[in-house]
Amino acid sequence: MKKIGVLTSGGDAPGMNAAVRAVVRKGIFHGLEVAGIFNGYQGLIDGRIESLDLGDVGDIIQRGGTKLHSARCPEFITPEGQQKGIEQMKKHGLEGLVVIGGDGSYRGAMALSKHGFPCVGVPGTIDNDIPGTDFTIGFDTALNTIIEAIDKIRDTATSHERTFIIEVMGRDAGDLALWAGLAGGAETILIPEEKYNIKDMLVRLDKGKARGKKHSIIIVAEGVMSGGELAKLIGAETGIDTRVSVLGHIQRGGTPTGRDRVLASLFGARAVEVLKEGAGGRAIGMKNNQVVDYDMTEAFNSSHKTDLSLFTLSKELSI
Amino acid sequence: MKKIGVLTSGGDAPGMNAAVRAVVRKGIFHGLEVAGIFNGYQGLIDGRIESLDLGDVGDIIQRGGTKLHSARCPEFITPEGQQKGIEQMKKHGLEGLVVIGGDGSYRGAMALSKHGFPCVGVPGTIDNDIPGTDFTIGFDTALNTIIEAIDKIRDTATSHERTFIIEVMGRDAGDLALWAGLAGGAETILIPEEKYNIKDMLVRLDKGKARGKKHSIIIVAEGVMSGGELAKLIGAETGIDTRVSVLGHIQRGGTPTGRDRVLASLFGARAVEVLKEGAGGRAIGMKNNQVVDYDMTEAFNSSHKTDLSLFTLSKELSI
Amino acid sequence: MKKIGVLTSGGDAPGMNAAVRAVVRKGIFHGLEVAGIFNGYQGLIDGRIESLDLGDVGDIIQRGGTKLHSARCPEFITPEGQQKGIEQMKKHGLEGLVVIGGDGSYRGAMALSKHGFPCVGVPGTIDNDIPGTDFTIGFDTALNTIIEAIDKIRDTATSHERTFIIEVMGRDAGDLALWAGLAGGAETILIPEEKYNIKDMLVRLDKGKARGKKHSIIIVAEGVMSGGELAKLIGAETGIDTRVSVLGHIQRGGTPTGRDRVLASLFGARAVEVLKEGAGGRAIGMKNNQVVDYDMTEAFNSSHKTDLSLFTLSKELSI
Amino acid sequence: MKKIGVLTSGGDAPGMNAAVRAVVRKGIFHGLEVAGIFNGYQGLIDGRIESLDLGDVGDIIQRGGTKLHSARCPEFITPEGQQKGIEQMKKHGLEGLVVIGGDGSYRGAMALSKHGFPCVGVPGTIDNDIPGTDFTIGFDTALNTIIEAIDKIRDTATSHERTFIIEVMGRDAGDLALWAGLAGGAETILIPEEKYNIKDMLVRLDKGKARGKKHSIIIVAEGVMSGGELAKLIGAETGIDTRVSVLGHIQRGGTPTGRDRVLASLFGARAVEVLKEGAGGRAIGMKNNQVVDYDMTEAFNSSHKTDLSLFTLSKELSI
Repeated sequence: MKKIGVLTSGGDAPGMNAAVRAVVRKGIFHGLEVAGIFNGYQGLIDGRIESLDLGDVGDIIQRGGTKLHSARCPEFITPEGQQKGIEQMKKHGLEGLVVIGGDGSYRGAMALSKHGFPCVGVPGTIDNDIPGTDFTIGFDTALNTIIEAIDKIRDTATSHERTFIIEVMGRDAGDLALWAGLAGGAETILIPEEKYNIKDMLVRLDKGKARGKKHSIIIVAEGVMSGGELAKLIGAETGIDTRVSVLGHIQRGGTPTGRDRVLASLFGARAVEVLKEGAGGRAIGMKNNQVVDYDMTEAFNSSHKTDLSLFTLSKELSI
Repeated sequence: MKKIGVLTSGGDAPGMNAAVRAVVRKGIFHGLEVAGIFNGYQGLIDGRIESLDLGDVGDIIQRGGTKLHSARCPEFITPEGQQKGIEQMKKHGLEGLVVIGGDGSYRGAMALSKHGFPCVGVPGTIDNDIPGTDFTIGFDTALNTIIEAIDKIRDTATSHERTFIIEVMGRDAGDLALWAGLAGGAETILIPEEKYNIKDMLVRLDKGKARGKKHSIIIVAEGVMSGGELAKLIGAETGIDTRVSVLGHIQRGGTPTGRDRVLASLFGARAVEVLKEGAGGRAIGMKNNQVVDYDMTEAFNSSHKTDLSLFTLSKELSI
Repeated sequence: MKKIGVLTSGGDAPGMNAAVRAVVRKGIFHGLEVAGIFNGYQGLIDGRIESLDLGDVGDIIQRGGTKLHSARCPEFITPEGQQKGIEQMKKHGLEGLVVIGGDGSYRGAMALSKHGFPCVGVPGTIDNDIPGTDFTIGFDTALNTIIEAIDKIRDTATSHERTFIIEVMGRDAGDLALWAGLAGGAETILIPEEKYNIKDMLVRLDKGKARGKKHSIIIVAEGVMSGGELAKLIGAETGIDTRVSVLGHIQRGGTPTGRDRVLASLFGARAVEVLKEGAGGRAIGMKNNQVVDYDMTEAFNSSHKTDLSLFTLSKELSI
Repeated sequence: MKKIGVLTSGGDAPGMNAAVRAVVRKGIFHGLEVAGIFNGYQGLIDGRIESLDLGDVGDIIQRGGTKLHSARCPEFITPEGQQKGIEQMKKHGLEGLVVIGGDGSYRGAMALSKHGFPCVGVPGTIDNDIPGTDFTIGFDTALNTIIEAIDKIRDTATSHERTFIIEVMGRDAGDLALWAGLAGGAETILIPEEKYNIKDMLVRLDKGKARGKKHSIIIVAEGVMSGGELAKLIGAETGIDTRVSVLGHIQRGGTPTGRDRVLASLFGARAVEVLKEGAGGRAIGMKNNQVVDYDMTEAFNSSHKTDLSLFTLSKELSI
């Protein structure tokens, strides 16, 4: 193997740049040439492929977003689109590809691997919802972004003795809501993995008030319902006038945390090693605090397990 | 004068605690006793008045929100409510009051002053919309909170080559939108003080694209319209699929910046000096980089002037 | 068991407050009374013991430092000092103790346990140097504090095309230097676990320059040598005028990160469970991404293993 | 005038990039061509001059440091060096120059202006020590960096009930120490403009302790003495074991604050306007909250006035 490519795909996540840097430098360290593919699978089809040197990935480890950009590409779901991609890579002399992204990105990588073009997947998504890895790149940064927001909102919630609802990302996975809720000292957390009980929630609000609590913070993952819907529900049941804050896209950006940069560096480097050995269809992950690689199909056939002990703990600690 | 009070009222703003600290310590420095009134004018009516010592305001200069809490108080708009407040203050031996807050808070302070109870107003609101002062406590912190959010969103906007709309606070005053838009490098800023021109906005978007710009950020003050409405408008005119981020309540919280702490310290201290001289109905401000005090009626009879030269500059620099 | 105590000891670490909160609330959740012991072992001897209620640990999860304060206590190394502590605890009805701190704090806890008073240790130290746990409370926050500093210094290093030496904490353990160096993109990292080679370091500097690198950042753990000494060494060998930054005590403070808050919550809660079962002489830790408890003697008899694969990786990625 | 240049010189300051962006874009807005001169006056002599387009200064408004880099240049103090610079500029078709920097940078600009080549100075230095302007670019960011450090150190100071000395930048001007000390709630501030009185300082320490204060923070500007020297002095007088933190180079870096970005944008834009009118030897500043331009000799012949009322206030508020 002489030359490999790297692309980022799907929603961007802080730390993607650190992963790209690791792929490029580890590749060059092993004597490979490394090319960046710009704009995800769309750029692959369009042949937006450029060789990257050591210096090209300098001064990016600390940057949010992705220098390689990202884009949706419906065409790449088709075998024709995939073939175009392979042709482009062959034209540029690539013999392997590292794909940094989430679920959808992995499907593209799997398809290419099945066509005989070896791809390795690196989990980059703030949602932490890739099966087979305990953590994904970007989750830690997003967690801290949410916590900073909670800390800010708590200032105003306390000052005005109000109940706030904070809507965070997480369509299918409650990890962000759960970790942030526990770390932010939220009184109530609503996640897709657990049926919410509006009565129970209100009992908790009352209890808090009874012991002199001046404010209350409720975290809701977007996958359960929107913050606005929840506010209506609570209003209808209790007449309580809650305030809603939808954190939105700030959760995707920002300078990556130390942990996300280290994770991204480890993952990117391992991806190159796996690819160098000729393996395709592998995914990189962190399992029990060890960097691992595993069959990418596992990422589709199993499902991500949110640590629900945190849910129980959060309830016990916010009484 | 032997004893004075201090309260915070209206929406909380970062730096209010630093102002409270300054009032208490400057008062004690001058041999006065200082009492904190909790929960704004409502707490005044209810007699939630407690003497504050040097140590009671220790370790709060860096805290967001307000230790004295705040609350709405419709009753205080009535002369009866105001009389109740005066009685409570007399009961606790208070001879003067410092009110930290915005527009509405000043009206209460003015009413009390007219009833013969000397009050001094300190401008505490993130909106920067109090006539007679160039800056209010909390504006600088909110500005930086917005900018951090813009910086984060720019990461993801660039990565995905998208147009983002960011809705910020400012019902009547465009200061936050304007300063943040200029400092955040936004392509377009919509403020209540300037008629927006949707055509002009779209021309700017096109120009940017023509010269290779990958993303675009539009800042809209809530007083113009909501981010969602603007997205619909742009969508209807152009078919462009913009993303909306409503920053909401995070803008009110957070550790105050250095400048807000200094401003709050200067304002709180000056308020005590003015009160000590027996004057009521005065407001504190920063005018041409000097701390000033002025007749509080000026805050009602004139109107805040947003520096529109920043609007022009922003347009010139984001071509 | 009806009543337990909690103290923090040794150097403070961000997240200690979150751990105290978890101990108190988990204890109360299980029907226990919980007392805080102020000023570490010294306060224990002096009987500075106060019952803590749910509200007493409200609004502290996000605060750096420790609400229970900490102090050195040479007297507690003696059996007499330890007996005084036990008497105080018996006087206050305590039947178990959670000790949050580092190495030295564990020794005190072990001694008490051997005297028949059950203690459980929770690892709280930014150095990450407690054997038996992969991570300690405070490490993640300190890591991010260092990285922010590196990011700032890189700005000025790049602008002036200079070589900077950054001295970080870590007398015996290189974890902070290593993680921060990798995450900060440092060209060279000096840790106590690896013999440094000044020649090799200079070769790397030269290589970087040869490929157009404008600046260079060297991270040195204080346990290797001081930043000043290293600057002299480099100056003597090469004549290069490096700049030194000693990060110092800012590394101990600050709002804890999400991860440190979650870790602290998990650890504090587990400590209560272990204590409730009557066990003493146990230490809490995170091992392979699982919360564990283990014989505290392991913390003395084995030694912390820094993950040296990060060292190798860092070298490969900063070529 | 058809083409102008811009350079940054001296110590870098956050916001310099925003100023460069403003010069380039305002220049282009007015139909001028704008060239960046890399590496300060040294780069001017060496002819490191490149035309900058709108996009070349995109995505830099939020970056610390200076994209144009900076360097010392002893040769430029000589008339020969200056002539070389003028020749280079003429060769590249430049007819005017904006110099962003401090004191020393202004001297170079003045010399060029006297040789008939019009230069305008923009104050960029964290020290806030340029006569004729109330604020310099970078001061606000450095202020906030210091305050964050103080907040962190206060956590550990309180936890351990210790006295900390924090050494900040400021050789001749005490602005940073003064503003940061006031905003950080420091008990004592030592600045070059005020004779310190070690006895008075100790009395304050004692007073604080007497009223139950657990910790104390002393800010010292490097121009008074080093933190280490002060610690020795206090130790010798009192036996108190203080801790020292030298903030060092982190003060120069970091993402610029909102205010620094706005200031830089205003200054850069005004510099272009002044230059366009053909004027040389002018300096840009903020005076009484208005952007002004003034004869650059004023920056040499008068001296910067630190607002010493803040010093008095700080003493009154930290009793």
